Amino acid sequence: MADDVGTPGAVPVAGNGLLGRRALLRGGLGGAALLVPGFTGAAERPPWMRAPGTGMREYGAPSPLEAHVRRVGIASQPGTDGSGASRTPLELLEGTLTPNGLHFERHHSGVPAIDPGAHTLLVHGLVRRPLTFDLDALARYPLETRLQFLECSGNSAVNILSPVPADQPCGVIHGLVSQSEWVGVPLGVLLEEAGLRPEARWIVAEGADAAAMSRSVPLEKALDDAIVALYQNGERLRPENGYPMRLFLPGWEGNMSVKWLRRLRVTDRPAMTKDETSKYSDLLPDGTAELFTFPMGVKSVITRPSRGVGLRERGVYAISGLAWSGAGRVRRVEVSADGGGSWAEATLEPAAAPKALQRFRIAWRWDGGPAVLLSRATDETGAVQPTRTSILEARGRNAFYHFNGIQAWRVDADGSVANHYA
Amino acid sequence: MADDVGTPGAVPVAGNGLLGRRALLRGGLGGAALLVPGFTGAAERPPWMRAPGTGMREYGAPSPLEAHVRRVGIASQPGTDGSGASRTPLELLEGTLTPNGLHFERHHSGVPAIDPGAHTLLVHGLVRRPLTFDLDALARYPLETRLQFLECSGNSAVNILSPVPADQPCGVIHGLVSQSEWVGVPLGVLLEEAGLRPEARWIVAEGADAAAMSRSVPLEKALDDAIVALYQNGERLRPENGYPMRLFLPGWEGNMSVKWLRRLRVTDRPAMTKDETSKYSDLLPDGTAELFTFPMGVKSVITRPSRGVGLRERGVYAISGLAWSGAGRVRRVEVSADGGGSWAEATLEPAAAPKALQRFRIAWRWDGGPAVLLSRATDETGAVQPTRTSILEARGRNAFYHFNGIQAWRVDADGSVANHYA
Repeated sequence: MADDVGTPGAVPVAGNGLLGRRALLRGGLGGAALLVPGFTGAAERPPWMRAPGTGMREYGAPSPLEAHVRRVGIASQPGTDGSGASRTPLELLEGTLTPNGLHFERHHSGVPAIDPGAHTLLVHGLVRRPLTFDLDALARYPLETRLQFLECSGNSAVNILSPVPADQPCGVIHGLVSQSEWVGVPLGVLLEEAGLRPEARWIVAEGADAAAMSRSVPLEKALDDAIVALYQNGERLRPENGYPMRLFLPGWEGNMSVKWLRRLRVTDRPAMTKDETSKYSDLLPDGTAELFTFPMGVKSVITRPSRGVGLRERGVYAISGLAWSGAGRVRRVEVSADGGGSWAEATLEPAAAPKALQRFRIAWRWDGGPAVLLSRATDETGAVQPTRTSILEARGRNAFYHFNGIQAWRVDADGSVANHYA
Repeated sequence: MADDVGTPGAVPVAGNGLLGRRALLRGGLGGAALLVPGFTGAAERPPWMRAPGTGMREYGAPSPLEAHVRRVGIASQPGTDGSGASRTPLELLEGTLTPNGLHFERHHSGVPAIDPGAHTLLVHGLVRRPLTFDLDALARYPLETRLQFLECSGNSAVNILSPVPADQPCGVIHGLVSQSEWVGVPLGVLLEEAGLRPEARWIVAEGADAAAMSRSVPLEKALDDAIVALYQNGERLRPENGYPMRLFLPGWEGNMSVKWLRRLRVTDRPAMTKDETSKYSDLLPDGTAELFTFPMGVKSVITRPSRGVGLRERGVYAISGLAWSGAGRVRRVEVSADGGGSWAEATLEPAAAPKALQRFRIAWRWDGGPAVLLSRATDETGAVQPTRTSILEARGRNAFYHFNGIQAWRVDADGSVANHYA
């Protein structure tokens, strides 16, 4: 194969091997393909072409050879098996959507086995007419689509809680973020149907799990882009994601998108539930606590290469990662291959919507030496993803929610990759 | 509940109850929700809130109560169980994506059990350097996203082959169309890596199934938007969709997006394979046959209401459907509730990309009388979805591929819905 150094377009754009956009567009990445010298005809047919294959299935499943692609970092509170989380294996996926079977989970008292025919949503409080809606009733309202991310506010916290870099893959560290096409009824339509009273300012959403997960949501958000989601990536919500209905609040911390939604109480003030006071609040160094920290910050992470997804040999690779912001679209992602000494702008796929995951990519020629890979996102409001150090200095080690610090991956001479604090 | 007739915005826009856009945006659809008179507090907790739920799972599955949401219309050639098709249950889904487990299948000799570590893609023929690529090699090239539909050219054929309307749901009739986020390597990058010779005009793609499914693809398409897809909705391709790699040709008849792709031979002319001569060609009334009918025509179908998904009682409903075109974006969908006597423009969601499924919706007040619902799509080239009759007159009954005639659903007084020839 041709040496990539001689490839048209393989122009260095930052230190330690980052290459310009044309290197990704034109091929010529060098060494990846195998030359077939003197090829004259089709290769011998492999065994699976010599007999008919298997038939159709009512509901498909991944290849058994992909059984390693599963949720990771599964952990529960002591004495429970359902008060905990599982994470999306980001480093084994591509694109921006998460298959429903791999969407992260975060439950406060397990997954309730809800009979959808017996489940209703109650809208009451500061409304003119308290109403209940069953699934058939909701199906008659206009549905809208939200192809957007959902991120747990505790995502990536290990990178601030652990004094040394956790020896874990990308999904265990950052896999409390997933993306789906959520489809449901705009919350504003249901509130209008019930008739908001003039003093209405907040909505208290309650789930039908044993924890009765409850969060207060400002009315402005409820009337902006909130939906009561009924479908996830085309089909009904999965049980672990709120079947048969959940709140979905684009861009806001995941626990507010209350699953198994049974009740919306309209109020004039927040309810100060256990889930927004004892949890999901952040203790700051001065002894005060931050409450109601709703939007998720601007963030990015390189998913390949990353720990467990290393490099085979020196040569050119496509670095691939995800970027997102709870404030809107990501405008720019910069990548460094020399630990922050120099940066180059990655190619960024357009967002399906504001507050959606976006893929970024950049070509990188690995020369076989050590390297530290970083990515840094900037969103359309101008917010820039901060460093881990700056977050620690500003917020201390107790404020572990909403951690969006830059992720560093250290590449060693054998091509292996490790979590690293830059 | 308020009578919808008195609802602001419930403005008739066409005959037999079609309502204007504001009726869908403002709620007030009348009769759907249940009023809770004298409500004073939270309802009693349902049984599933009284004990902790189940724990996390490595790979999730739909609720057992959704077991009826499965592929439909599963049928094989006599004597085989893998030469056939299964279909997506469109009337039970919402949004525009198809869960991987429900993507339609069309196999010519079953699903081969491919070992991805032993599978390679060969690029040869009119190239300077024949090359083979394994999965690791392809992973080093730039990946691109195609969030677009895939439609079998035989989709909906029952509506032209059957002299009376088949008593079947939407998915059995039209469910050979699905949509995924496909991610893969642009075909042009791989061809450039191999180096096209000046006389190159076509690519012959061959699958690694026992049928060695083979199709000729014009070079212009290969260099335009074709990819070698590696991921489907975030995860590796499913076995029935070409694991570990398939061709994906946006907007073109599905069988050309060759699954289990093992070989791309660059040629100066089409290969005239069995799959493009004895099959996937259309016999016309004058005795000639149409070959190489690549793009799928402009099309739409109402998914709700439709057979099996009827109406509960008179009142206002959101009609929901899908529209698409192999030539680009759909620009307009019109709906009729009086069998074509009058038409109103539906609300159309923007396309994720050209050649993608788009949802349309319109409010409809069913007065309890008979109705015939139609939808008619127009794409950005100005092409208009034709009637069944006009297709029959132009192409006869032998030309059953690429049938994109208008679907009619007859609503009867009991709220049930039936396939209908308008």
